[in-house]
Order: sequence, then structure tokens, then C-alpha cells
Amino acid sequence: MSKHIVESFETELERMDKAIGRMGALALRQVDDALRSLLNGDDRLAARTVEEDREIDALDAQVMEQAVTALALRQPMAADLREVLAALKIPDELERIGDLGKGIARRTYVMKNETPRPPLVRLRAMGDLVKRQLAAVMDAYEQRDANAAERIWKRDREIDDWHSSVYRELLTYMMEDPRTITACAHLMFIAKNLERMGDHCTHIAETVYYVAKGERLKNRPKGDDPARPAGIGDDAS
Amino acid sequence: MSKHIVESFETELERMDKAIGRMGALALRQVDDALRSLLNGDDRLAARTVEEDREIDALDAQVMEQAVTALALRQPMAADLREVLAALKIPDELERIGDLGKGIARRTYVMKNETPRPPLVRLRAMGDLVKRQLAAVMDAYEQRDANAAERIWKRDREIDDWHSSVYRELLTYMMEDPRTITACAHLMFIAKNLERMGDHCTHIAETVYYVAKGERLKNRPKGDDPARPAGIGDDAS
Repeated sequence: MSKHIVESFETELERMDKAIGRMGALALRQVDDALRSLLNGDDRLAARTVEEDREIDALDAQVMEQAVTALALRQPMAADLREVLAALKIPDELERIGDLGKGIARRTYVMKNETPRPPLVRLRAMGDLVKRQLAAVMDAYEQRDANAAERIWKRDREIDDWHSSVYRELLTYMMEDPRTITACAHLMFIAKNLERMGDHCTHIAETVYYVAKGERLKNRPKGDDPARPAGIGDDAS
Repeated sequence: MSKHIVESFETELERMDKAIGRMGALALRQVDDALRSLLNGDDRLAARTVEEDREIDALDAQVMEQAVTALALRQPMAADLREVLAALKIPDELERIGDLGKGIARRTYVMKNETPRPPLVRLRAMGDLVKRQLAAVMDAYEQRDANAAERIWKRDREIDDWHSSVYRELLTYMMEDPRTITACAHLMFIAKNLERMGDHCTHIAETVYYVAKGERLKNRPKGDDPARPAGIGDDAS
């Protein structure tokens, strides 16, 4: 405790910032490892991916504690307060991205034994898009770049479109060959997990914008027309 | 602004508490309406459900602002600080539950025209379970009841088990009658949305526990064994 008081607030903020950056890097690796374990049917990588999620969880708890301590002892205002708020919000999103990655890795075991299974080339491309989105939003956070955050926020639609298209394709495989139904159902959830990771990136982008600008991004990027029916595979928009 | 300074901090906390309670009630109605619109094929109720989600979004933004203002102007400590932290965390979860409800309501339009479709009795029961979980966790919040929060937190496994069982059942319908594939795929996502609502209730329970006790609940209730493969339909556990 005394360390916190002696240390400058600047140093505390830097430490949280660094931990969040580390969480972002771990989440990105988690997504990458999860997809690779699935695509290569690599059980050992899958087990490691599940295991490594613990580090993200531990960092999440640690940053939360640092942020709460900072609020209690430093009583920050304005931009400093926004920094601490980001430290309360962003780790939650990264922790959930890690969980979703773990969910994908876990399917490696079942997917390995499913034959025939549909081609995974589009899923791979969708995964690459999500990884780029996550890397970009963590860059935007590092730079406190509101413009970049807004661009990333708008780009989430692209991931949603990919998701719908992967989903439709899986549906056609199921119909053409019922032996692929189980594998395709797993792949639908994997695609959905990737789409949800995109949503979490969008939430991070909102927080980055708020930290940098002191105001909230208006209007969710997703369609909000009440009369619009669900796109196939479309969800929490 | 001057109003905030004149008012007692107590009053501010009460106002946030009330808004969160209102959000909880709205989210619960959202889930209920979404399920009823789907199960009865009621387009108008579905449209209203999607529309009404805006109120939850508006309250979410409002509570966030109140909480940030309270942090900046009141610089709360200890239990008061935890109250404000809850006001920063819980609305996000409720907002996402509302979004998931909206996602279910949107599927009413497509599901209506899908025939044949599988019986929905188990999905309805799963929905009832999720509604009870949400009502219980909002009660626990209202009472700042750590024991109740912990019980609710542990009960999430039950929702996960229901989810796996609904998922498996849908898979068998798909295999037996490929004409049900599209309907079943939609229903899988609906079941998944319900399961995710359960996850958000778990997150709320964690926050309630923290507000009441000043410490974090340890060990996620979900299985975390790296060697354990994904249950079918199992995900971000």
C-alpha cells in the first residue's frame, strides 16, 4: 500500500496501461492459437490455449484491483479519471475475448474426428479479419487515437457480413450432406465466437474514443432498424 | 452540475440504484417479450421488443454518466466507491442482455415461415430458467446479498446444461429431417443467446458479491479443466 502512495500517479497509470497492453497481446495470441489448433487439429496447442487463458484472467483481476486502488487513493479527475475508467472497462472485454478463444480451442478435440467436414478457408479469412481488428483497436488504445477508434468501430460491420456469409455457407453444406451437420454446427459456433470477438473490439473502440475525447461515440455501428428482420446468423446487434 | 453538488451523495447513489433496478426490470421484460414473440410468431411484439431496447441503451448511457460524475465530484471511498463501481459494471451486462433479447425477437420474422419446425417446449423451459436467474440476481443486487449472489453464480451451470441438451436435441432433428435445418440453426442461436444471458447474470452476481463483501468471488463456476473437451454447444466457459 505504501508503495502506491510513494509512487507517482503517472507511474500507476503506466503500470495499468502496460498490463492492458499485455492482456491485448495475450488475447491476440489466444485467438491465433485457437484458430491454428482448430485448423490443424492440434490437440496439444488447443490444451495450451485453454491453459494460457488463465494468465489473461489473472491480469484482469490485477488491473481491476489497481484501478480501484487508484480511484480510492488518488481520486483522479478529468483525463486521469477517464484513464482509470478505461482500466476498469477494457480488461473485461479482453478477458471475454480470451474466453471465446478458449471456446474455439476446446472444439479442436471434437472437430478432429468429424468427417467429412466442410472447407475452412472462409473461416480462416474471417479469423484473420478479427485478429486485425483486435490488433488495430489495441494500437488505437496505445495511441489514445479517437479517429482510429471510430474507424475500427465502423469496421465491425465487415465482420458481421463475413459471419452471415460463413453461416449461410455452412447451412448449405448441412443440407447437401447431412453427415456434415455436427461439424457444421460446431463451425457455426466458432464463426459466432469470432463475430462476438468483433463485438468486444467494438466495445473497446468505444472506450478508447471516450478516453481520448471525453465523450461517447454516438449510434451503434450496427443496424438498429426495428423493422429489419435478423440476418441469418445475425444476433446481438 | 450545481444540482449534483447540492444533493447529498446518498441521493445520487439512490438515483443510480433506481436506474439500474429499472434497467433490470426492462431487461427481464425484454427477454420475456422476445421469447413470447418467437414462440407465438408475434411480429408486432417482436418489433416492439426491438424498439424498446433503446430505453435500456439510454439508461445505460445515463447511469455511466452519473457514475463518472460521482467519481469526479465525490471521490467516494470504500463501500461508496464499490457502489459506484457496480454502477459502472452492471448496466453494461444488462445492456447486453437487452441486445441478446433483441436478437431473439428479430428471429421471429424468419422462424414464422419455417416449416416443419421442431417443438419448442424445452427452449421455453430454458427461457424460464434464464428469466428466474435474471430476476434473482437483480433481487440480490437490490438487497446487496452476497450469499444469494454466490448461489446464483453457481447456478449458471444449470443453464449451461440445459443449453447443451437443447443443442443436442436440435442436432438430432436436423439429422432426421433436413427440412428443419434452417429452423434448427436459428433455434441453436436462440438457445445460445439464452445461455449468454446466463453468463451475463453470472457477471452481475460477481459484481453484487464484490459490492457487498469488498472481495472478489474466486474461481469461475464453469469447468476450467484444460484437458476437458468442449461439450457440444459449450462455449465461452
